Amino acid sequence: MAESAAPLLATLGAIVGEANVLTADTDIAPYSTDWRDRYRGRPRAVVRPGTTAEVAAAVRCCAEHAVPIVPQGGNTSLCGGATPHEGGHEVVVSLTRMNRVRAVDADNATLTVEAGATLASVQQAAADAGLMFPLSLGAEGSCAIGGNLATNAGGTAVLRFGNARDLVLGLEVVLADGRVWNGLRALRKDNTGYDLKQLFLGNEGTLGIITAAVLKLFPKQRTSATAFVGVGDVSAALGLLRAMRQALGDRLTGFELISAECIALTRRELPAMPDPLPGHAWYALVQADDAAEQSPLSAQLEAALADAIESGVARDATIAQSEAQAADLWALRDNIPEAQRREGPNIKHDISLPVSAFPAFLDEAKEALDAAFPGLRYVTFGHLGDGNLHYNLAPPPGTRGEAFIAGQARANRIVYDLVARYGGSFSAEHGIGQLKRDELSRYKSALEVELMQRIKHALDPEGLLNPGKVL
Amino acid sequence: MAESAAPLLATLGAIVGEANVLTADTDIAPYSTDWRDRYRGRPRAVVRPGTTAEVAAAVRCCAEHAVPIVPQGGNTSLCGGATPHEGGHEVVVSLTRMNRVRAVDADNATLTVEAGATLASVQQAAADAGLMFPLSLGAEGSCAIGGNLATNAGGTAVLRFGNARDLVLGLEVVLADGRVWNGLRALRKDNTGYDLKQLFLGNEGTLGIITAAVLKLFPKQRTSATAFVGVGDVSAALGLLRAMRQALGDRLTGFELISAECIALTRRELPAMPDPLPGHAWYALVQADDAAEQSPLSAQLEAALADAIESGVARDATIAQSEAQAADLWALRDNIPEAQRREGPNIKHDISLPVSAFPAFLDEAKEALDAAFPGLRYVTFGHLGDGNLHYNLAPPPGTRGEAFIAGQARANRIVYDLVARYGGSFSAEHGIGQLKRDELSRYKSALEVELMQRIKHALDPEGLLNPGKVL
Repeated sequence: MAESAAPLLATLGAIVGEANVLTADTDIAPYSTDWRDRYRGRPRAVVRPGTTAEVAAAVRCCAEHAVPIVPQGGNTSLCGGATPHEGGHEVVVSLTRMNRVRAVDADNATLTVEAGATLASVQQAAADAGLMFPLSLGAEGSCAIGGNLATNAGGTAVLRFGNARDLVLGLEVVLADGRVWNGLRALRKDNTGYDLKQLFLGNEGTLGIITAAVLKLFPKQRTSATAFVGVGDVSAALGLLRAMRQALGDRLTGFELISAECIALTRRELPAMPDPLPGHAWYALVQADDAAEQSPLSAQLEAALADAIESGVARDATIAQSEAQAADLWALRDNIPEAQRREGPNIKHDISLPVSAFPAFLDEAKEALDAAFPGLRYVTFGHLGDGNLHYNLAPPPGTRGEAFIAGQARANRIVYDLVARYGGSFSAEHGIGQLKRDELSRYKSALEVELMQRIKHALDPEGLLNPGKVL
Repeated sequence: MAESAAPLLATLGAIVGEANVLTADTDIAPYSTDWRDRYRGRPRAVVRPGTTAEVAAAVRCCAEHAVPIVPQGGNTSLCGGATPHEGGHEVVVSLTRMNRVRAVDADNATLTVEAGATLASVQQAAADAGLMFPLSLGAEGSCAIGGNLATNAGGTAVLRFGNARDLVLGLEVVLADGRVWNGLRALRKDNTGYDLKQLFLGNEGTLGIITAAVLKLFPKQRTSATAFVGVGDVSAALGLLRAMRQALGDRLTGFELISAECIALTRRELPAMPDPLPGHAWYALVQADDAAEQSPLSAQLEAALADAIESGVARDATIAQSEAQAADLWALRDNIPEAQRREGPNIKHDISLPVSAFPAFLDEAKEALDAAFPGLRYVTFGHLGDGNLHYNLAPPPGTRGEAFIAGQARANRIVYDLVARYGGSFSAEHGIGQLKRDELSRYKSALEVELMQRIKHALDPEGLLNPGKVL
């Protein structure tokens, strides 16, 4: 291995500097496994280029040696998308040294940044310019913006600002043969041929390596209002969602559904968490934000909620009277996964559906799962406004975690079959990676898989970019 | 010709009914030229399928006979994108009989519609459901939604709602071999492999035929405010744009730049038009809309404009006091093209730039054009908020139209070279069609053209879909 790899490694060392070609076990370990330690691989080497030209030269070198490449950003994939396979054949190309903000254009409300910059640093650069980059998610301190774009990340602001795809005006991409496509345009309107950047957004490193991007910025949000609303059932929550949309327009930035079970579980594991409005079966956490400094947003939210209670879609509501109260409500929501983790093993599903399908889906899924797993507990919460719920299953009281997890494939099948029947998605925001390739081939039509393969072949005919991921 | 076409026509007649296969000169005439009568072609036949299955069968039949296809919706392309070539080889597939709204889902805020429905009928179906479809443009009474999507139409609401591409959740597409890709998903989050619909949005009929789509709907706008603002120069207009964005957030739905020359020209040709705020060199028409019924929007706009005047980015402003006054201000803006048409021949450019580049671009372009065409008059207006201006040129006083138009290629070259230097686009919203293929090959990199050709080859290897358009 070491000998046959020598010419490749020597050339790579000449390109990026020997210090940036890692081969020792301890050096490559952080790049060889995902952050949750669910996937482990063994690359031939890890290369850390510092410029687009170095990425291009490294890819060209790998292509000449027919060596497959695994692009990697912050290595925070939830699907093993950036982890190399076993076998020692692949070269990991780590983008983390490419982390410069190349330009901020406040009048155009755009920011040009390299792929290895963390999401948090992008947010900060936007804030420094008096503006806002709205993509936000748990891993933002360590995930790389290039990975966010290559996986079309979702996060907490999709209801208002869309997915990562919607936040991009231009890309710079190193292609499978090492050529560089400069698509770093900063235009909101441009109909000059096929919109090639769309191919690379969400490609999970299989069609090209994103090295830089032009991102859209937005006005800073200066006024906020947060409410916690009790509703009778999920249908009522949908009615509330419509009412809030009409009353607040785009200032509705969050609409999270939370079941009473989620709150009980969270307060059991984390007793400091609040119980803002006891006695309802379901809750909606409603967040509204306004760019204006003096905005009657809170009064408008209050009036809209009063109307909702009068019309019967809501049962009761409380509006946060301070930033601290708002933070408490969000902490209750954000700590559900942590409470689940403390309680023990569970089965998670990152699903999306047409929003209107949730009431029927939840009823049918419960019926099928209750039959298969008597006593099962449901931990249902998430971004109802986007049609994206975390539909998580916890073991019946008294069941050991291992026995429960043994049923995961069967539970997944029940859930995903039903999701498919309702026209939903088995991966709303996390992507495919290594984790969900079987689901992709099961739930996508043969024609759709064929079209994806044709695109893959058109852009990476030798199959050298992140093989064994997505397709 | 008639004899060799007979088996094809017989099969097509069996598929769609003989009444829907047109071959007589008078029958095919409306499909053989664009609405402005700038392109004329001669198809072998016009086929009018009524269902997706009929489109699929017709395309399969054409593919078997190696006959090229020109998809056509409302035939309102500004670039000859839907007009067949001379020669009588092509079959026009007209989608206008496929005009049903298949479904409206108010809770999911989506609408599923067939490609041949007019944009106006889509807007109406959304309004009937208490919601709003924001795409809006001059041809909306006759253009087909399928054509809007296949050309990624822009229109008057891009600043807030994005281009047509941004308004689509799912597509149904007939591929070049007649197979049907059912991508009619109604999901706001779905990361299950490559986002294939992006390929067909803006493809101008060269990669597949869009037969139906799932569109995003929005809350109805119930409160509006409109202002006309005098500014000293285009840099000041940019400052005003930033201030309005920060003050109004997403409620800023329009920001049109208008030069004093545009107003003088329009009032000369159409004396009934108002002169709302005489004495400034440039104007911004600012439109704000709010979904809320009782919104302090007008007061907020007034306060923001007072701040802008105080800080010096605006010189003076007037706020419409009634819907009629607002309509008058928009009529002044909307009638600039009509005034230009009445005055005589002119040279139009549909360009976009990073917004921040406009002041320097306009200075440099004027210098270069003044040198080439002494006495030239500039008719500059458009969607500054989107970075998309109509940069139109009128002949010097006393110059005859024909002599002026003879210089069009030279003027285009000056403008587009400079647009390219500033990272702009030579076709912001109208697309390529037949009109701008030369510009595409001149201003796109060889690599970008190659990538487009690879995509074309991957999806239409025989080159039967709308040949000679885009590429």
